[in-house]
Amino acid sequence: MSSLYYMLPPSLRESLQRIYSMLKVKPLYFDFEEQVFVWLDTRLIPFKEVYVRSRDYRRIAKAIKDMEIRGAPAIGVAAGYALALAALEASSSSADFVEKLSRAKRELASTRPTAFNLFWALDRVYSAALKGYEEGGVDSAVKRAFSEAASIYIEDVESNIALSREGAKLIEDGDTILTHCNTGSLATAGFGTALGVIKYAWMEGKRITVITTETRPVLQGARLNVWELKKEGIPFKLIVDSAAGLVLERGMADKVVVGADRIVATGHTANKIGTYMIALAAKRAGKPFYVAAPSSTFQPGSRPENIVIEERVADEVRTVMTDRGKALVTLPDVDAFNPSFDVTPPDLITAFITEKGVIEPPFEVNIPLTLGWRR
Amino acid sequence: MSSLYYMLPPSLRESLQRIYSMLKVKPLYFDFEEQVFVWLDTRLIPFKEVYVRSRDYRRIAKAIKDMEIRGAPAIGVAAGYALALAALEASSSSADFVEKLSRAKRELASTRPTAFNLFWALDRVYSAALKGYEEGGVDSAVKRAFSEAASIYIEDVESNIALSREGAKLIEDGDTILTHCNTGSLATAGFGTALGVIKYAWMEGKRITVITTETRPVLQGARLNVWELKKEGIPFKLIVDSAAGLVLERGMADKVVVGADRIVATGHTANKIGTYMIALAAKRAGKPFYVAAPSSTFQPGSRPENIVIEERVADEVRTVMTDRGKALVTLPDVDAFNPSFDVTPPDLITAFITEKGVIEPPFEVNIPLTLGWRR
Repeated sequence: MSSLYYMLPPSLRESLQRIYSMLKVKPLYFDFEEQVFVWLDTRLIPFKEVYVRSRDYRRIAKAIKDMEIRGAPAIGVAAGYALALAALEASSSSADFVEKLSRAKRELASTRPTAFNLFWALDRVYSAALKGYEEGGVDSAVKRAFSEAASIYIEDVESNIALSREGAKLIEDGDTILTHCNTGSLATAGFGTALGVIKYAWMEGKRITVITTETRPVLQGARLNVWELKKEGIPFKLIVDSAAGLVLERGMADKVVVGADRIVATGHTANKIGTYMIALAAKRAGKPFYVAAPSSTFQPGSRPENIVIEERVADEVRTVMTDRGKALVTLPDVDAFNPSFDVTPPDLITAFITEKGVIEPPFEVNIPLTLGWRR
Repeated sequence: MSSLYYMLPPSLRESLQRIYSMLKVKPLYFDFEEQVFVWLDTRLIPFKEVYVRSRDYRRIAKAIKDMEIRGAPAIGVAAGYALALAALEASSSSADFVEKLSRAKRELASTRPTAFNLFWALDRVYSAALKGYEEGGVDSAVKRAFSEAASIYIEDVESNIALSREGAKLIEDGDTILTHCNTGSLATAGFGTALGVIKYAWMEGKRITVITTETRPVLQGARLNVWELKKEGIPFKLIVDSAAGLVLERGMADKVVVGADRIVATGHTANKIGTYMIALAAKRAGKPFYVAAPSSTFQPGSRPENIVIEERVADEVRTVMTDRGKALVTLPDVDAFNPSFDVTPPDLITAFITEKGVIEPPFEVNIPLTLGWRR
């Protein structure tokens, strides 16, 4: 292990070792030995498993922008370590250290506009680095930055496991659970949120079945959920996104569990495009609709109008990722509208599942109460 | 022109000539000169335009089953001509004519279980052939069968144009119209239902914009609507199916117009999978949701429980049609559930658009009244 590793406080080193020994797969972690950040390129899953290694924060920014790394918590972890690497890179000269770090923060923040975890993680690592810099110059700044990035990673895995345990209490033996988009190991630092709940219930011995949407345009369901569910051995069926309404209306699913990219104080939830229509269908069918997310996804003091809906390139709609690579599904000059997220209003949400407990309505009261927000 | 053509009554010959001169493209018609049924293989659109020609009803049955020909009215027309061709084939021997015709009818009926037009068209041509057989043997049976098939074709195009004219009255200058699946020339004998309404409004000079879903799994939106809308010059945007909810909620579309595969007496409407969730989203957003269909799609005396939801092969979900041919979007052994249709309940439908006028609620009263069903 490198000196960077031994710069971390002993408690963090212990937590890292415990987590590494627990996770079946590590799609996202910092290799302290080689001083590189390591990630699985999720765009190639399930056809190829390619791990990318880089110590350049710009390369990690590109990986976030291009969705090699995706899912709000995973983006937060990657951005945190990326900013720590930027601090390491800038530490060669004390003169413009803060300026360089600030530039890297802006670059990393510009990759994905909707994911709240991104800004939250960057703010944490940036503040820690500045504090370190004031205390003891660049070396102290680097140490603080890596400690903070490692903390974000540890907190994410630990809060995932904690929220999954909470959520699993809502899952009964024999349940069929509908989920949308990927919220598992490939979306987080390591265990998952909505898919974590499902995995935890399965580990408890509950005989459950999963119905996963394919999740166009990027097919996180057809590619990532399928890969993860097969690795876990959980029985599942794949559907096109449009079939969710029929599945709920016919009682073929007992409940819905999804993740979230951003939850505001009113309970309005930004999540993968299509979530809103599934919530409408669940409400009409009288089926519970749960949102599983760590407390870091909740944004204190925010309102629905604060949610910026990211519009991605038209090319994602015109193409599809296949076993033969990217291919066109329509003519190449077609104009497409490609919003990444929609907003599910609180009246369609049965409860939020967090590491601090399950939050039921009224959300404007119970979110601050459960998460311990100061008034 | 062959003798078959001159066997048709003069009024039908005139109608056919008028229609042929009117349609920009003929994706589906009977070539009386060569005595073959001709269709555009819609699976290859928009990448290739391949016309298939056959006088074998079994080949046409395969084309319906494999969705070379798709869309309820187009299926009805194809099945009608296919049964007429079966009558022609069986006419070599009078002995087992009825038995052969009956077998062909069963084969054709087994291709697609949900489309009401299929059974309706087969019943019409079959009854006509039997009547002809009783009147004057096999020659008369063949003559009657082709006259009936041609009538179905003519009625479909003429009713499409009539319903499109009715529907266009509901479209205002400047409207943005959301549609799902293909309901144009490639779904009917020639003009279209929901897309017919849009085309008619455009021909009237209304400046409209279309938002079309891609319509997984077979991508009728991304492939067929895009091809048709480009041919017509109507401005449009393509979205993934999941984005329909956001589009309606944000007011980016003013109304929804879709087609139907089967409408029962209560107004419950079977249409392409995903229609139900779009209707839920339209209701919540307070946007009108119209179903455009000829009266042949309505089934007198039927109830919602009479609707059989066709479940198609899992392979359609596991794969996608691209410019490089069919490709996998997931692992080849994944289990998928692939219902082709869902049912939109009448409380989500603003009105039906038919060639006999616009039908508003209460549907159980107004459908029989407008369509002239006997009590």
